[in-house]
Amino acid sequence: MPPNPWQTKASRIAYENAWIRVREDDVIRPDGQPGIYGVVEIRPSVGIVAMNAAGEVALVGQWRYALNRHSWEIPRGGSAPHEADMLITAQRELAEEVGVIAQHWEMLSVVDVCNGVSDDMQSLFLATELSETPMHLDPEEDIVVDWRPFDQVVAMVMDGRITEVCSVAAVLMVAHKRLERTAR
Amino acid sequence: MPPNPWQTKASRIAYENAWIRVREDDVIRPDGQPGIYGVVEIRPSVGIVAMNAAGEVALVGQWRYALNRHSWEIPRGGSAPHEADMLITAQRELAEEVGVIAQHWEMLSVVDVCNGVSDDMQSLFLATELSETPMHLDPEEDIVVDWRPFDQVVAMVMDGRITEVCSVAAVLMVAHKRLERTAR
Repeated sequence: MPPNPWQTKASRIAYENAWIRVREDDVIRPDGQPGIYGVVEIRPSVGIVAMNAAGEVALVGQWRYALNRHSWEIPRGGSAPHEADMLITAQRELAEEVGVIAQHWEMLSVVDVCNGVSDDMQSLFLATELSETPMHLDPEEDIVVDWRPFDQVVAMVMDGRITEVCSVAAVLMVAHKRLERTAR
Repeated sequence: MPPNPWQTKASRIAYENAWIRVREDDVIRPDGQPGIYGVVEIRPSVGIVAMNAAGEVALVGQWRYALNRHSWEIPRGGSAPHEADMLITAQRELAEEVGVIAQHWEMLSVVDVCNGVSDDMQSLFLATELSETPMHLDPEEDIVVDWRPFDQVVAMVMDGRITEVCSVAAVLMVAHKRLERTAR
């Protein structure tokens, strides 16, 4: 691996709210010239493909303010401050948003999201052996949950009905793993 | 589809540089309470799975400043201001970063990236029937290009050597399409 070709000379917080913080660094770029780099800092997050015994997957539908449209996605959410274990975050998120707890958890990947400008890292899980628990939504969340057959969810990813990229990645990782198991 | 449950009361630019703009809106949340929403505005972007006649895919390796580590990804880039046709952006990006032009382009999806806080939309393409053209890198880019067999790239996605989420999504969409064609 090559060494870091960037130098950071100074750093300041340019914007902050409860969810994101924008850091602007004075840098020396890889070409040796001075410049700035704005990094959107976000707490680590999780995304969960939750599959029940019937092979159905939980989809969460909600209006995405930043896109100004409705979106179907896998259950996703940010970690609480100082929450270091993303499995705990995923278990909390799945219980709160979908109202299920899972006996079996499989880590799919830790993906980086929008890495040109953000440090967002989302841990993707497959959760199975599900049972019900009461839901607890955050006040700013206005969501519906729908359970769809896995093949239908894959079709929604492939034909553009699901566009949220972590959902696309997680669903297709599960599809690929299932194919590999079948092929063996 | 449900209607937009959010109301926007006011809007201001909180931060801006050459690549991102942070807008902070005063909102009425779905629960009827006042709040704020910070949206990181980014110009639409592209990602390209470029596959040559030998079945090899172009990977771009670069240090990602926001993550503070090296990353292998498909060729990706942002659109120029007022560049409306993402196919043009993709063709420019592939020529500049990888030094190839493609005769055949297939749209995979337009994914939304980090949609909880950003309006980033990345158009994903499969580009084939490639030929060489001179590279032209931006001064802040310090990248290497490597061509790897497609199956190896899929393995890199599945075992976490590739974590950039648009690359994960695009590579697995191509893998799924190839399987579907084989199955027919």
